Amino acid sequence: MSGPLKGINVLSFGRVLAGPYTAMLLADLGADVIKIETGKDGDMARHNGPFINDLSSYFLSVNRGKKSFSLNIRHEKGVDILKRLIRGMDILIENFRPGVMKKMGLDYEDAKELNPRLIYVSVSGFGQSGPYSSKTAFDMVAQGMGGTVSITGEPGRPPVRVGYSIGDMGAALFAVTATLAALYERTGSGIGQHIDVAMMDSQVALCENACARYMATGQIPKPIGARHPLVTPFQVFPTKTDDMVVVAFTDEQWGKMCEAVGRKDLANDVRYHSMRARNENHAELESTLSEVFRTLPRDEWLSRFEEFDVIGGPVNNIEQVVNDPHVKARDMVLEVAHDRLGKLKVVGTPMKFSRTPCEITNASPDLGRHTEEILAEKLGMSQDEIGELREEGIINSRQPGSKGG
Amino acid sequence: MSGPLKGINVLSFGRVLAGPYTAMLLADLGADVIKIETGKDGDMARHNGPFINDLSSYFLSVNRGKKSFSLNIRHEKGVDILKRLIRGMDILIENFRPGVMKKMGLDYEDAKELNPRLIYVSVSGFGQSGPYSSKTAFDMVAQGMGGTVSITGEPGRPPVRVGYSIGDMGAALFAVTATLAALYERTGSGIGQHIDVAMMDSQVALCENACARYMATGQIPKPIGARHPLVTPFQVFPTKTDDMVVVAFTDEQWGKMCEAVGRKDLANDVRYHSMRARNENHAELESTLSEVFRTLPRDEWLSRFEEFDVIGGPVNNIEQVVNDPHVKARDMVLEVAHDRLGKLKVVGTPMKFSRTPCEITNASPDLGRHTEEILAEKLGMSQDEIGELREEGIINSRQPGSKGG
Repeated sequence: MSGPLKGINVLSFGRVLAGPYTAMLLADLGADVIKIETGKDGDMARHNGPFINDLSSYFLSVNRGKKSFSLNIRHEKGVDILKRLIRGMDILIENFRPGVMKKMGLDYEDAKELNPRLIYVSVSGFGQSGPYSSKTAFDMVAQGMGGTVSITGEPGRPPVRVGYSIGDMGAALFAVTATLAALYERTGSGIGQHIDVAMMDSQVALCENACARYMATGQIPKPIGARHPLVTPFQVFPTKTDDMVVVAFTDEQWGKMCEAVGRKDLANDVRYHSMRARNENHAELESTLSEVFRTLPRDEWLSRFEEFDVIGGPVNNIEQVVNDPHVKARDMVLEVAHDRLGKLKVVGTPMKFSRTPCEITNASPDLGRHTEEILAEKLGMSQDEIGELREEGIINSRQPGSKGG
Repeated sequence: MSGPLKGINVLSFGRVLAGPYTAMLLADLGADVIKIETGKDGDMARHNGPFINDLSSYFLSVNRGKKSFSLNIRHEKGVDILKRLIRGMDILIENFRPGVMKKMGLDYEDAKELNPRLIYVSVSGFGQSGPYSSKTAFDMVAQGMGGTVSITGEPGRPPVRVGYSIGDMGAALFAVTATLAALYERTGSGIGQHIDVAMMDSQVALCENACARYMATGQIPKPIGARHPLVTPFQVFPTKTDDMVVVAFTDEQWGKMCEAVGRKDLANDVRYHSMRARNENHAELESTLSEVFRTLPRDEWLSRFEEFDVIGGPVNNIEQVVNDPHVKARDMVLEVAHDRLGKLKVVGTPMKFSRTPCEITNASPDLGRHTEEILAEKLGMSQDEIGELREEGIINSRQPGSKGG
C-alpha cells in the first residue's frame, strides 16, 4: 500500500460508521489498519442491506483496505492480545459510548501506560464530557440536536435529513484531521494524546454560518429550500426538462447571467441590481427566472451558460454521478479486489497527492480474514500458539476462499 | 497560540469559503496563517451580510486567528514579496480556478522551485484535471453535480439544499486531512507535494452509501424526507408539541422503544419484528408511531426515552443550539477578541486534544491588519522599506484602532 501514511499502524474498534469512516480515511492514506471485531457477528454494519450475495454493501463501502481481526474480548486472553497489539500501534480509534473502553481496561489512561506514543481517538455522540456525554447518538440524533435539520428543507414543510450520514462522516472528518495533527505533533514531542470528537459538536461546527447569522442578528435561521441564505440567485431551478443549479455570486456574474438568458433589463432593475437587493427580492426574482428557465431544456441552458461564462450545472442523480465522465476521469469510482466477489466498485478518494498517491486496491475484509496473519506478523506467534487460541475460542479466523463470513 | 500545529507556517490565498475554511482549521490547530488579500476590497466574503457594524459576519465566522496581508499582486514587487514569503512557508492554500496561480507565476511548479518542502494545496470546484477542470463551481454546483441534492429532501417535492455549505466545507475537510497527511510524510521524506481536492469529488465521496446502494442494486436512491434509507425507525417524528428524532438501530433498541411507548405489541408484529420488515413496512410503521407520538408533548417522550434507554433527541433550532448547556459545556461557542468589536462570539472547534488543546482567541482580522508586522517579522524589512512599499501602493496596511476596514 502506498500513500502518505505508509508505515503507520492503526487499531480500530470502530463500528457502524463514524469510527469505521475515520479508520477508512487513514487506510486510504496508506496506514495499516486492523479492524477489531468482537462477538460472533463482528461489526453490526455487516448486517445492513442491501446485500451483494451475502455481503453488506454498507459494510463494503466503508471498510476497504482494512484487516479484520476477530476475537473474544469477554475472555481475559482476548483482552491480553489487544494490549499486546496496542504496544505497537500509532493510533487507536474507538466510537463506543464513553465508559465502554474503560470496562475493558482499555481506556486512554490504560492505553497510555502500555504505549505513551499512542494517539487515542474517541469519536462519540456527545463527547467524553458535558451533561449529555453518557447518551447514545446515531447520525440522525446529531443532525437533529446539532441544528442541521432546522436549516435543511423547504420552508413550512416537514423537516428532512441530509441525504447522507453527515452526522457520522462530519465527526469522522474532524476526528481524522485532529488525529493527523497529533501525529505530526508527536514527531516533535515523542508522545501521544487523547482526542475527543463528538458528533453533535461537529454538526454545530458545520452550522457555523447559521450560528454566525443568529449571533449577529438574533434571527433564527430557517430552512429555505434550495436557496442560499445570503446569495441570490444560488439555487436549483426547474427548466423545460430537468432541474439545474444556477449561481451568481458577484454583480458581474449576475450581469453575465442576465445576458445569457436574454434579460439584460434584469441586471439594471433596481430590485435586482445589487446582492442586497436580489436577496431582499428573492421571491420575485425566483418566479421571474423560473418562468424564463422553463422555456428551454436544461442542456440548452447549460451550453448557453458555458458560452456566457455563467456558473451552473445539472442536478445529477446517483446513476448519473457514478457514470459521469468527469467522476470517472478523477478516479472517483474505483475497482477493488474482494476474496469472494472478485472485482467490486467503490467510491474513490477526493484526496489527490502528486507524490504519494493513495492506492485503494483491497475491498472490505471478511470477518476474521486477517486474524492469524496479524497474530503471526505483529505478535510473532507460532502456528501452534495460534491454533490453541482458535481452539479455546479466543480468536475467530477464516481463510480466503472459505465459505460464509 | 497553542495547538498541535504550533510553529507551522501557512500562506492562504483562500477566498470566500472552501480555501478559508481549510486555512481556519489549520489556524484553529495552532498554525500561523497569513491570509493574502489582493485588490482594494480583499476577500469578497468581506461583503457578505449580515453585518456587525460594518463587518461581515460571514467573513468573521471563518477567518478567525489568521493574519491579513494585503498587497497589490498586479505589481511585480507584490509578486516578488509573495515569492519571498513562500520560501519560509510549510503550507500554501489556494482555491482559485485552475490556471490562476500559474498566471501569477505561483503555480506548484513555480512554488516548488522556491521551496521544495512546500505542501501546496489546491481546492477547486472540479480539481486540476478532468473534463470539467476549467469550470467554476460554488457550493450549490457541487451539491447538485455531486449527487447530494438528488438524495436530500421530501419524496416528490422540489429539491432542497443541505442547509450549510457542505459543498465547500466537505472539500475543506478532505483538503486539511490530505494536507496533514502530507505534512507528516514530509517529516520522513523532507519534501512537499501538490494536493488537489475538488468540491465535486468530495460530494461524491460523501455520497458513498448512496453510490454503494446503487452499484449493488441498480436502483437510483431518491430523497426520502427525514428517514434513513436502511434503518427504521431512524427519523424525525412530530409530537403533541415539537418535532423529535427517534432511532432504533437494532432489534433490541426497537424492543425498548416499543416498551417506552406502551406498544409492546409492535415489537412482535411480523410487519416490524426485524429491520428488514420495518424497512419494508416503513410507511405503515411511520403512521402508527406518528399517531402514538402525537399524544404527548416532546419533553415527556424524551424523559420516557431516557428512562427506557431509547435513543432520541430534540430537533434544535440555531437559537437552541447556541444556548444548549451541552454545547456550552463543550466550548462550542467561544468568545474571541476583535480590534474594533471587542468580544465576539464564534462557533468553537470539535477537535478536542488532551495535551495540546486548540486555543482560539483572536477574531478575523481587518483588511491589511498584519501587513507591516509580517514584512518586518518574516522578511526582516525595515520601517523605511515598508514605508516605501506603502507609498508605491504595493501594500495596504492598517493599524489597530484605525477607522474603516
